[in-house]
Amino acid sequence: MGLFSKDIKSMDDLFVHQLQDIYYAEKRIVAALPEMIEKSTTPELKMAFESHLQETKTQVQRLEQVFELAGRQPQSVDCPAIDGIIEEAEEVAGEVADKTVLDAALIAAGQSVEHYEIARYGTLISWAKALGKDDCVDLLLETLEEEKAADEKLTMIAKEGVNRAA
Amino acid sequence: MGLFSKDIKSMDDLFVHQLQDIYYAEKRIVAALPEMIEKSTTPELKMAFESHLQETKTQVQRLEQVFELAGRQPQSVDCPAIDGIIEEAEEVAGEVADKTVLDAALIAAGQSVEHYEIARYGTLISWAKALGKDDCVDLLLETLEEEKAADEKLTMIAKEGVNRAA
Repeated sequence: MGLFSKDIKSMDDLFVHQLQDIYYAEKRIVAALPEMIEKSTTPELKMAFESHLQETKTQVQRLEQVFELAGRQPQSVDCPAIDGIIEEAEEVAGEVADKTVLDAALIAAGQSVEHYEIARYGTLISWAKALGKDDCVDLLLETLEEEKAADEKLTMIAKEGVNRAA
Repeated sequence: MGLFSKDIKSMDDLFVHQLQDIYYAEKRIVAALPEMIEKSTTPELKMAFESHLQETKTQVQRLEQVFELAGRQPQSVDCPAIDGIIEEAEEVAGEVADKTVLDAALIAAGQSVEHYEIARYGTLISWAKALGKDDCVDLLLETLEEEKAADEKLTMIAKEGVNRAA
């Protein structure tokens, strides 16, 4: 989309733009997770990030199906939000000396990523419903439920780990 | 904090770092909301953003109280996450031609901001609990509830507006 060209003229255009945004974000997350897995110090956290990496790869494919249902080629737009969230995660992780504290920082980073996605999928689902794209709604809902479950799992791991580190 | 100096050595350091991060974010949101209010086309959305601007100013003061309780001077650290989220909001809003569609884009932007804050305050509360900072927990919980309510309000406004625009 051109920067000064006002290319978004309808709800359908906005829906596709947001799809392109989250498509970029999911692929960025697939690229960022291996480092988070490597840095995690407990097996429990490592496994949670590993299973979320597999899940995220499936979510990328699911988005490609949504593009197809919407009659579009899968395409990304730059997403400064996810770039910023991941940049911040890497910066903070780089400043932590203690291992248990590092896990707490990684969990916090993971949860800020999950919440970005929860917001985006929530919006996409409400737009898809309004546009009568019921088949897209079903696919997007599957991913939204996975993101919420991933967030809750991190909350549980955090509760145990943070109490050890504090 | 120095970029290569591993300044975060304890959960307490991490808690303070995250406080500094959300302090920056809240002030950034106070600066960004007037443009979102101006761009909103329905009185309902304008009022929701206006009331959230007042709320956010109170949240900044509440954070200053949390700093005080933690024995620290209020201070910001750069927060690339909120910078990215707001940059993305402004970019997308600038690309929308239709007014009703613009409202939908502004609501989506608002909700991605709310979810960033929900993630951050959720983490801060769990860390404050583990660190036995009960007085901080109470203040942070007040803000978390406001952020969740703001997100739900935007969901409700979206449901009516999007159906008009689709």
